Amino acid sequence: MTYDYPFTVRFAHVDSAGIAFFSRVYEICHEAFESLLAEAGLPLGFVINDQGWGMPVVHSEANYKAPMRLGEQVLVKATIERLGNSSVTFAYDVRGPEGDIRVQARLTHAFIDTQTFRPCAAPESFREGMNNIGLLPADQ
Amino acid sequence: MTYDYPFTVRFAHVDSAGIAFFSRVYEICHEAFESLLAEAGLPLGFVINDQGWGMPVVHSEANYKAPMRLGEQVLVKATIERLGNSSVTFAYDVRGPEGDIRVQARLTHAFIDTQTFRPCAAPESFREGMNNIGLLPADQ
Amino acid sequence: MTYDYPFTVRFAHVDSAGIAFFSRVYEICHEAFESLLAEAGLPLGFVINDQGWGMPVVHSEANYKAPMRLGEQVLVKATIERLGNSSVTFAYDVRGPEGDIRVQARLTHAFIDTQTFRPCAAPESFREGMNNIGLLPADQ
Amino acid sequence: MTYDYPFTVRFAHVDSAGIAFFSRVYEICHEAFESLLAEAGLPLGFVINDQGWGMPVVHSEANYKAPMRLGEQVLVKATIERLGNSSVTFAYDVRGPEGDIRVQARLTHAFIDTQTFRPCAAPESFREGMNNIGLLPADQ
Repeated sequence: MTYDYPFTVRFAHVDSAGIAFFSRVYEICHEAFESLLAEAGLPLGFVINDQGWGMPVVHSEANYKAPMRLGEQVLVKATIERLGNSSVTFAYDVRGPEGDIRVQARLTHAFIDTQTFRPCAAPESFREGMNNIGLLPADQ
Repeated sequence: MTYDYPFTVRFAHVDSAGIAFFSRVYEICHEAFESLLAEAGLPLGFVINDQGWGMPVVHSEANYKAPMRLGEQVLVKATIERLGNSSVTFAYDVRGPEGDIRVQARLTHAFIDTQTFRPCAAPESFREGMNNIGLLPADQ
Repeated sequence: MTYDYPFTVRFAHVDSAGIAFFSRVYEICHEAFESLLAEAGLPLGFVINDQGWGMPVVHSEANYKAPMRLGEQVLVKATIERLGNSSVTFAYDVRGPEGDIRVQARLTHAFIDTQTFRPCAAPESFREGMNNIGLLPADQ
Repeated sequence: MTYDYPFTVRFAHVDSAGIAFFSRVYEICHEAFESLLAEAGLPLGFVINDQGWGMPVVHSEANYKAPMRLGEQVLVKATIERLGNSSVTFAYDVRGPEGDIRVQARLTHAFIDTQTFRPCAAPESFREGMNNIGLLPADQ
């Protein structure tokens, strides 16, 4: 029930202490999100441009437990924490090579109609896609 | 008791919907933080390199209330929410030209000794600097 | 005949050596470009969305002469190097507090019609705007 | 004699037209550079911290031939264009799924001693590493 996204910490991500800058970690989590959407048959560009809905981030939060250094290969483990009527919250555990926790992040997305920018219900195709990659139980 | 930091939303900040990407808002808040530190006589480079302490972000969170569009001039209003023994939490209200709220963010920094990377008490110079720019009552 | 854009090097711009990462300098130059467009009455969002033309970058180059450190206040001095039929090249000298050169960059933009994404002639409003802020001689 | 680095264009890379922002392409090329260094047994963090030399970018340039869209899987093909006494120039062809060229970029790095920040000769370990991954003929 997790989606794993491996990632290497790059020079452009690190600050003057040689560790990943806090806001860059969110970009990494969002990459994991885009990767799992594509895996579920719902690449974000296709969703926005051809399906007529989008998933803007309405809440983000992160706890930085331990630094991530230049060149480290980390694993982002994504789960769905809660699927509501018109929003979904993904949790991201970013773990080091030994499985040790580095960052715990959470992103809540609202579902919107990209024509009107109004909230909409979670699309059936989203639910199905998440079922297909094992992030939702089959009965949800 | 707030520090105001004006900011213009730039092309590099906006996503394919033409609105500021959620993680970029954190960079803007951190800029406001760096600006208020400098105003308080504690520019971050000086603190890290010459004073021997640092303030890495250990927690971040944001609620995105309304989008910020390309070219908009917004105002980041920074306050100190809580000064603890070895950490400080800044709150950032990002407001549009009409004073309407766009983003509410919060960054918690740990104080560390940059020699040992161990936590340390909030330096006296930090307390004084924040007093000087009116972000802390004089008796704190 | 130059447009000056002051800029402070922020924590998010610097790499593990504490100096501005080379690609971030381009973001700073593009900010100067956006600022001069706005000064000329042609804010980029207005141009793209309401005027129907755009100016994507088709060539970029930079020589990094000396590092820019965290917290430094630099001055981006922008000039128009060449206005062609369907493109324009801006040159950016980034100078330190003592006027010493740090980076010399150049960005060439193609003019395009945002409906068709095809090249188009330099719009008259662009020419006028650049005249107004003194970046083009009045007879060009 | 090329090093191939596959890359997916992410939401954080694209601008309001839905195409990769020009400066972000440099980050992608630098990632390819970091990846080939690691492949050659010279991960950048190890080089900087343990080997005592570095390779700051002293010149960058790029021609943007065709846009890269959100979600596209592109291939960065890196070659060494010139290895001089104290600098090296890498060329990067970024190609789309059909092999069509999108961006041609070039980064020149100076070799420096990280103690003194002075230029130094190209380290023997760099030459060997590049031989090992086939980016330099064995007699260079």
